[in-house]
Amino acid sequence: MNINKRIKVAQFGLGPIGISSLRLLARKSWVEVVGGIDIRPELIGRSLGEITGDLSSFPEAKVYESFAALLASTEVDAIVHTAGSKAEQSFAQIRPMLEHGIAVVSSCEELLFPALRAPETTQEIDELCQTTGGRVLGTGVNPGYVLDVLPICLSGVCASVKGVYGERVVDASTRRQPLQKKVGSGMDPEEFRSLASQGKAGHAGFQESLALIANSLGWKIGMISETIDPVIADHDIETAYFSVETGQTAGLHQVVQAETAEGFWIHLDLKMYLDAENPHDMIRLDSSPSIEATIPGGVAGDLATVAALVNAIPSLLNAKPGVRLMTDLSVPHCRESLGMEPALEAESAL
Amino acid sequence: MNINKRIKVAQFGLGPIGISSLRLLARKSWVEVVGGIDIRPELIGRSLGEITGDLSSFPEAKVYESFAALLASTEVDAIVHTAGSKAEQSFAQIRPMLEHGIAVVSSCEELLFPALRAPETTQEIDELCQTTGGRVLGTGVNPGYVLDVLPICLSGVCASVKGVYGERVVDASTRRQPLQKKVGSGMDPEEFRSLASQGKAGHAGFQESLALIANSLGWKIGMISETIDPVIADHDIETAYFSVETGQTAGLHQVVQAETAEGFWIHLDLKMYLDAENPHDMIRLDSSPSIEATIPGGVAGDLATVAALVNAIPSLLNAKPGVRLMTDLSVPHCRESLGMEPALEAESAL
Repeated sequence: MNINKRIKVAQFGLGPIGISSLRLLARKSWVEVVGGIDIRPELIGRSLGEITGDLSSFPEAKVYESFAALLASTEVDAIVHTAGSKAEQSFAQIRPMLEHGIAVVSSCEELLFPALRAPETTQEIDELCQTTGGRVLGTGVNPGYVLDVLPICLSGVCASVKGVYGERVVDASTRRQPLQKKVGSGMDPEEFRSLASQGKAGHAGFQESLALIANSLGWKIGMISETIDPVIADHDIETAYFSVETGQTAGLHQVVQAETAEGFWIHLDLKMYLDAENPHDMIRLDSSPSIEATIPGGVAGDLATVAALVNAIPSLLNAKPGVRLMTDLSVPHCRESLGMEPALEAESAL
Repeated sequence: MNINKRIKVAQFGLGPIGISSLRLLARKSWVEVVGGIDIRPELIGRSLGEITGDLSSFPEAKVYESFAALLASTEVDAIVHTAGSKAEQSFAQIRPMLEHGIAVVSSCEELLFPALRAPETTQEIDELCQTTGGRVLGTGVNPGYVLDVLPICLSGVCASVKGVYGERVVDASTRRQPLQKKVGSGMDPEEFRSLASQGKAGHAGFQESLALIANSLGWKIGMISETIDPVIADHDIETAYFSVETGQTAGLHQVVQAETAEGFWIHLDLKMYLDAENPHDMIRLDSSPSIEATIPGGVAGDLATVAALVNAIPSLLNAKPGVRLMTDLSVPHCRESLGMEPALEAESAL
């Protein structure tokens, strides 16, 4: 990578996260934003400055209807993809980019560990990347950091690990409307259970977090068990978006667990509900030495997610082509500039 | 790297940390211990089983007087180096290994960021590695993890970082004799100050922790300021090794600080003293979003140090040849086996 050359980045998907991603990309000295991609007709052809409300940062870049249309107008090194939770659907959207050797960082939850639900496509896409030089990575905050990369990183100073416990409590009252809706706010508890049992409610990518941990530790886990239950409101709750009465759903409690034949175990516990007390992230390793780490308040949601995506771009460009995992990349970190990084200087990824 | 082939590892330096490293290496299924290296005549030629008290784990491996003697008897892929704190001296010991394309993981504190004190040798060694395929990395717990890699990793979910604060409080009463001695236990405070001002007391590698953080964030810092003061005993203290009277030195308080022209700042604070209350590690980022993480009790010392060294071996073998930093390597983690790691499978580092 030539450190004097900015990385040309485009944004695929212009929902709230995509807009937030563009605003952050505009502030990074090592990025040149070359365009956006969205299928909504009312956006196509408009300038990114207009859409983001930040005219000075995007003098020329605009919205294209497809990756092909973008590529016909500009060069691009990397794409931030924020347009879905399912591995197969995301791979279908990303494939044309990989065919052109682009590096794609995606918020798609299942892409954190795509071999779990799409093993054949993952292998096929990985083989495609070996011939084109393309790279794809799924990341974010959860999945992507607090309940997977963080416990993995903590294990780096352990001689041995027997078990991994992680818990995250999110006060959904402080979050935007889509998250309050996603956790079932105001829903009849039986209706929530019914939707959850059909895979239509709950936090996506939770099993992938567990699979990433197991993979990094070298554990061969069997079945992953997952439960999703409503948290029942014990008092009436009024948010900016929802009115929840006592007895209705105030949020969700989701657990994934697995163990190996040798007795190694992983247990991840997520609660996201309105008026949650003591929001936090906590990791406890049953390890030698034992380690417990707590983040009071927890890692905040949307901005941190966007940061995780943007911060991963240079690391992904420095990684080997293929379907990459967070554990394949260098230690995640924020970057003010790329100028002082010896590993980047030594590279010729671009 | 052929995942069915174990990594051939030798241990350079057979002090307490070196012995502990051998014991851990023996428990890793992906390691084949091929020998030890130490200059002490009474050790040379003895079996590692005898020296470690673990006869079954080392049926044949023994102690050699030098790397050359080891190499005359066996193949070796990687060496764990635990024999000094100074970059120049360690580079001199490690150079012959790098000439043979070996990967060396070292506990040498200054090698965490060797360009700080030995910029010319670092460049020369890096160039050597480009021709031989050798790799060298400095790591550990402190420096190497709690006050550098951990805050760096936490910045991975930050859109921007203005400042990094880290503190570590170690209860030296719980640690072995060399650490109690190193922190000045029982010394006259003025004598401790005098030794510290001559660079003969204090925690090594602290400025390197700061430099690694600044480098990863892309901050161009100026002068690093460092202070080392005695912690004065406010009561009589009796440990297994020292009797410290009120008014004598009970330990050390060391601080490194730096800032950039733009006002970005790093402040790291280390206290290691007898009878310390509330030992812990704590990181607080002045960032967007802000993040604070606490490890109650702190990451324990010697075993964690050895774990950090051993855990880094496969990551270093997967990295590009050269003088490597922890931030060049994949996210640190413990490994039960290497079998499930796609990145390792795809590699041909060996």
